[in-house]
Amino acid sequence: LGKLSTKVVKVIKSIIKLGQDDPRRVTHSLKVALALTLVSILYYWQALFDGIGVAGIWAVLTVVVVFEFTVGATLSKGLNRGFATFLAGALGLGANHIASLFGVKGEPIVLGIFVFLLATASTFSRFFPRIKARYDYGVLIFILTFSMVTVSGYRVQGILEMAHERLLTIGIGGGTCMIISVFVCPVWAGEDLQKLIASNIEKLANYLEDFGGEYFPLPKNGKSGMVSKNKESFLQGYKSVLNSKSSEESLANFARWEPGHGSFKFRHPWKQYLKIGALARQCAYQIETLNGHINSDVQVPPEFLQIIQDSCRTMSIEPGKALKALAIAIKTMKEPKDACEHLENSKTAVEDLKIALKAASLETADILAIVPAATVASILVEIVKGVENISKSVH
Amino acid sequence: LGKLSTKVVKVIKSIIKLGQDDPRRVTHSLKVALALTLVSILYYWQALFDGIGVAGIWAVLTVVVVFEFTVGATLSKGLNRGFATFLAGALGLGANHIASLFGVKGEPIVLGIFVFLLATASTFSRFFPRIKARYDYGVLIFILTFSMVTVSGYRVQGILEMAHERLLTIGIGGGTCMIISVFVCPVWAGEDLQKLIASNIEKLANYLEDFGGEYFPLPKNGKSGMVSKNKESFLQGYKSVLNSKSSEESLANFARWEPGHGSFKFRHPWKQYLKIGALARQCAYQIETLNGHINSDVQVPPEFLQIIQDSCRTMSIEPGKALKALAIAIKTMKEPKDACEHLENSKTAVEDLKIALKAASLETADILAIVPAATVASILVEIVKGVENISKSVH
Repeated sequence: LGKLSTKVVKVIKSIIKLGQDDPRRVTHSLKVALALTLVSILYYWQALFDGIGVAGIWAVLTVVVVFEFTVGATLSKGLNRGFATFLAGALGLGANHIASLFGVKGEPIVLGIFVFLLATASTFSRFFPRIKARYDYGVLIFILTFSMVTVSGYRVQGILEMAHERLLTIGIGGGTCMIISVFVCPVWAGEDLQKLIASNIEKLANYLEDFGGEYFPLPKNGKSGMVSKNKESFLQGYKSVLNSKSSEESLANFARWEPGHGSFKFRHPWKQYLKIGALARQCAYQIETLNGHINSDVQVPPEFLQIIQDSCRTMSIEPGKALKALAIAIKTMKEPKDACEHLENSKTAVEDLKIALKAASLETADILAIVPAATVASILVEIVKGVENISKSVH
Repeated sequence: LGKLSTKVVKVIKSIIKLGQDDPRRVTHSLKVALALTLVSILYYWQALFDGIGVAGIWAVLTVVVVFEFTVGATLSKGLNRGFATFLAGALGLGANHIASLFGVKGEPIVLGIFVFLLATASTFSRFFPRIKARYDYGVLIFILTFSMVTVSGYRVQGILEMAHERLLTIGIGGGTCMIISVFVCPVWAGEDLQKLIASNIEKLANYLEDFGGEYFPLPKNGKSGMVSKNKESFLQGYKSVLNSKSSEESLANFARWEPGHGSFKFRHPWKQYLKIGALARQCAYQIETLNGHINSDVQVPPEFLQIIQDSCRTMSIEPGKALKALAIAIKTMKEPKDACEHLENSKTAVEDLKIALKAASLETADILAIVPAATVASILVEIVKGVENISKSVH
């Protein structure tokens, strides 16, 4: 019994954590329940029941299937469902009419052939990446409705009335979802995309700033040991950037369906965010490699460290600051003025490093011992280039 | 008109290409159409119609929604749908019974409260990563069926009969899908996962082998220019590995639902594939960084190049060969015997490089010019370590 109660406590804690991590999850659950209850009440309501009949159940079904977390996803599903139902319904009626010309015996055979051909073609079309990204749900509903209309048409009397009822109830269900999702505490996919990109860039910035202090501490400042306290967390933070491509792409897909809101217009350049995201990921790959090199056991010779130390610290902290400024610029949608200055500092540091290395002579030094530090410096130069590319895309 | 016809030709070409890239797509489309037509024929069939009534349409709906590309995905959706419908149906009937105790006026209110509470809880549960990965569709169907049963129960006479009919038709639809997907040209998610991991490792191997020949050509072999012909393709091949995490995870999720087939048992250690995939991705990050360094303009001093050349070539070609052996081992599920030998060669090369660098004195050399080559060497050492880790996981 003790085990069970600790398990229950664990589950309850994880539920609370899930809600605290993003309170919009709780709101979303309540919104779905609200939409569902509203549609159910419509169904209870005697007057409407007499008008719509058993088809009213389709409104309930639509709400459950269409209501998604973000506005964009809900609109995408709702509109896809609406248009696909309309189109497939019309085509299905046409197919029914053509099949009826073949007499009582021929009709089911012709209908079967129609269903087979359309299902094959539509299912295959779902493999097209473009259709998959935007209209996958629509094609599914298209096959569904077409088969249902043709199949029912053969049996049910008053097929036109049925189609009309179905379209009406789907409209009620889908409309309820869309209205609630847009007007009650909306969760905009576009805003989430912007936040995700900005926070990814911020994570890279944090790593670079901490890295500069950790690996190349200020010589006069004896407190370099202080930084390693939260080393674990700064080491892990950027890792989520490595695998954020799929979530960025799905958010961008949903954002395209959203109407203008806040400072976003209807045709906001969402692709630009994807581009910035890809460049940030490029930077994250470099950081991942960098991260593999800082745990090297080789002791860097002090005279070599002295040559590269200052430039490397600047090449790490300044791009970090530039990235922070860029993240703020993305969030506030303003020109990133500070970023340019930090970027200039970084580029100067790269030149300084080159000059220092050219001038240095290391007769006594052991090349093997130099290699790890040289690699770190070399990767930092690449990171500066990467940050420059990000900055160009943000402008 | 000319424009239109070129466009049509383009679309037809892309359709043919889509089919040729993976002929199983065509088979899948035909399988879906077959399942749909079979279920429709059942519906046409007079005898069954009398027994099942309008509910037969649910079989059609189930086929369209449940039939997925891989066996695992189809089984997951089919079983989720079946169990969720059964559970929600039973709960819905119970809720109806309880609500009916509250009299004619109280009934719709109590039912509304039930729907609201259950919809909130279920929708929230979909945010749990574990539930999302495996039972998302089941929870959706659970909310759907529960609302439909409670809402209909208030109106439709003979609710038990309806529930029985619905379960039967969903069983017919889902069963048809699962049987066709398992027995007609099955597409196993597990097999696809294995192939994906093996091909990812092969891509890394190709890059490393080509890189060794391109960047450190054999000194006596003047044909190094030959390799750069297909440089473009070898440069791009590994890039798909960087972002394969989400497809690996979804395949592993589906593979868990699949029964034993071929050389896979029911509880095959699919997680091990994910682990190998993650290590391969780690290697791909290193290669991505490496790739950024080979286009550097700096001319490496010949005397330094001579020191590192042989070891670096071995450190690139031998891990490549080891990875190829590992990829074959994954595909054939045999012990990777050759891999160990190539791995030993790579490790020897690492030691050789260290000894050569320690012994070298470069009084005349310019450190700046050495840095790019030293970085490449250093990253290659990391790659050798990465390949060793992959090899350990494969064993």
